[in-house]
Amino acid sequence: MPEFLSLVTPDKAIDLLFNSINPVVISEIVDTENALGRVTTEDIISPQDLPDFQRSTVDGFAVLAQGTHGASESLPAYLALKDEVPMGDKPGFSISSQECALIHTGGMLPMGADACVMVEDTQTLESGEIEIFRSVANGENVIKVGEDVSVGDIVIPVGTRLRPAEIGGLMALGITSINTAKPPVIGILSSGDEIIPPYQKTKPGEVRDINSYTLGALIKDIGGDIHHYGIIADNRDEMLKAIKKAQQECDHLIVTAGSSASTRDLTAEIMNSLGEPGVLVHGINIKPGKPTIFAVSGKKVMIGLPGNPVSALVIASLLVTPIIEAYLGIRSPRPKPTIAAELTVNISSQSGREDWIPVQLVKSSKGGYKAEPVFGRSNLIFILARSDGLIKIPAPATGLEAGTLVSVRLL
Amino acid sequence: MPEFLSLVTPDKAIDLLFNSINPVVISEIVDTENALGRVTTEDIISPQDLPDFQRSTVDGFAVLAQGTHGASESLPAYLALKDEVPMGDKPGFSISSQECALIHTGGMLPMGADACVMVEDTQTLESGEIEIFRSVANGENVIKVGEDVSVGDIVIPVGTRLRPAEIGGLMALGITSINTAKPPVIGILSSGDEIIPPYQKTKPGEVRDINSYTLGALIKDIGGDIHHYGIIADNRDEMLKAIKKAQQECDHLIVTAGSSASTRDLTAEIMNSLGEPGVLVHGINIKPGKPTIFAVSGKKVMIGLPGNPVSALVIASLLVTPIIEAYLGIRSPRPKPTIAAELTVNISSQSGREDWIPVQLVKSSKGGYKAEPVFGRSNLIFILARSDGLIKIPAPATGLEAGTLVSVRLL
Repeated sequence: MPEFLSLVTPDKAIDLLFNSINPVVISEIVDTENALGRVTTEDIISPQDLPDFQRSTVDGFAVLAQGTHGASESLPAYLALKDEVPMGDKPGFSISSQECALIHTGGMLPMGADACVMVEDTQTLESGEIEIFRSVANGENVIKVGEDVSVGDIVIPVGTRLRPAEIGGLMALGITSINTAKPPVIGILSSGDEIIPPYQKTKPGEVRDINSYTLGALIKDIGGDIHHYGIIADNRDEMLKAIKKAQQECDHLIVTAGSSASTRDLTAEIMNSLGEPGVLVHGINIKPGKPTIFAVSGKKVMIGLPGNPVSALVIASLLVTPIIEAYLGIRSPRPKPTIAAELTVNISSQSGREDWIPVQLVKSSKGGYKAEPVFGRSNLIFILARSDGLIKIPAPATGLEAGTLVSVRLL
Repeated sequence: MPEFLSLVTPDKAIDLLFNSINPVVISEIVDTENALGRVTTEDIISPQDLPDFQRSTVDGFAVLAQGTHGASESLPAYLALKDEVPMGDKPGFSISSQECALIHTGGMLPMGADACVMVEDTQTLESGEIEIFRSVANGENVIKVGEDVSVGDIVIPVGTRLRPAEIGGLMALGITSINTAKPPVIGILSSGDEIIPPYQKTKPGEVRDINSYTLGALIKDIGGDIHHYGIIADNRDEMLKAIKKAQQECDHLIVTAGSSASTRDLTAEIMNSLGEPGVLVHGINIKPGKPTIFAVSGKKVMIGLPGNPVSALVIASLLVTPIIEAYLGIRSPRPKPTIAAELTVNISSQSGREDWIPVQLVKSSKGGYKAEPVFGRSNLIFILARSDGLIKIPAPATGLEAGTLVSVRLL
């Protein structure tokens, strides 16, 4: 197998992979209270109207709108005060167009009432009568039955990642547990004879494993689970054994494939040997991250990332995220967070290749942000730690000019 | 106590609170591997140079740059191949300017070598000599000792929220556990006689508790811990008892203060009675969320939010977030994620009040996004569930025109 089958664009790489997989999402039930970030695996149908009774949106008086018809400061309407609406209970009385009832925000309108007058637009007379200085229309200051959602509405579609608002909505409907996607388990393997666990002291020539932890943190943040397989020796037998084991035990796997060309070729060759369709992408026209491998064997995705920790993390953010989102069943991912900023310097780039440049965001004196590239070799992890995000130089461009308004994708 | 002391701007509200608190951050040690989202409570100083040996960034040959001087396709340099650099070990040999050593990406340069030549720029002769077609400069294709970080550098400043890149950097330095801010514990109390737990069936006039869960999810997401106190009856004794208990047991507390003016006044009055300085803010010139209370008693912050679930969640996102971030010790919060979008319709707003409008993001045919307001009463939770984010109409404005480029703050 050649080092690079042929370089493809990042979009094409994702297309090639997605054409060979058919993600099946497994459901598990979780408590809604703890479901933040989880993804729904079915349409959530409202079991009831919300609200399921007419509620006042103001402190004031429940009325029949027609009883306030023509009322004004100079010509008030006068209504008899029937009673007070108890909070959290059904009023045990009804009113006529000559009557009103004291009501608090959130209170249930008594039978007969169809609107509320704000207390600021009224005055209570010594007689007990209520003077109304403003007419209201039918439905004014009232939330109608089903105004938020109606029974049978799809309130949260399948494939939605839950935020606090959705959790609140589910609780409002009494849906206190919910079917969500079981996090896919991603096996993580690092290779490289120079790599040692971070818990050990390095000897000359050795470096500590970074990729297992950056990728692990990122995958958990996206909503996956991880299983660490540690550091695999750079030889065919060990790599094959470890990749096979991870493939059996996990849903998918990622190998950070050593830095040297021979290790990367070995990874691709092993992935290709594990069953159809094998290696789909071997080399992406992107910087950093060219030596990326996408392979599929049966229903399992295998990804080979460069050993270089910056490349591995950038590619995982950009290209592994949508893969995991697909296996979580996310239908239309929300836009990735970005910040608009003004580029501070000229950056050149190789035409035909998509480049991603780490930048720091600096508050601009004009308001807004400036994007300042963090230069340095692409394999220094603290380059990324010092960056707020990445900017993209599209493939056709030969660079970006200082002053260009760029969209910074937050890391 | 009047219903509103006097309305202040959102910025002024935060200033008034921050002038009365002096957040002390408590440290706790966590494993770096699990520290995603945690906030450092000390400057992290590098215990070593990174890398701590000269590494090759290419597959090729380690050389003395001077030995390649003047080499070109037409006039190659010829170097004797001394040996191969073992991965993960110190080369047991040195080279002279007439020699070179086979080296792989990430390999340690042998004594004497100061640069590497890419394999693509060489040819191995039958004699075993290496033909070099391109001269390299001192340091070329080499990461120098300390090029990423030097011993003693502050690699991660105090008050930084850890992302995957920082976790990788710490692991690279062998820093496998780290001092981070202990999450502040926020007591959450809901009040309102019409509110019942979401696990119960509603009777007419009752609604389920939303705020405890939207706020709980949000606070955990920001990095706080929560303690639920459930639903408190709308009377002085019960409220006082519950707020005192939460104040004793938690670092800070949030009460969603019923919907009616009398309950909100009661909440403010109780918070004001618990010790100096008492209520600092009672009413903010913002929509939604006007009836917000900020109080401090001793070292504890007490926040009263409107009972209306949309107001409570919007104010928590906008104004409670910076408070919790302060108690996590975050020094310079990264910019909040936004998306630039074109507003689809005219929106009017009351001049002098800051308005936040929920919007949906729709992909524009021109590329980019359109922001489509999600209209509806501000107290319908599914209005927020249907929205991607919020747009701000600044206080001086009387609205925004269709076509305006707005910054959508993601929910």
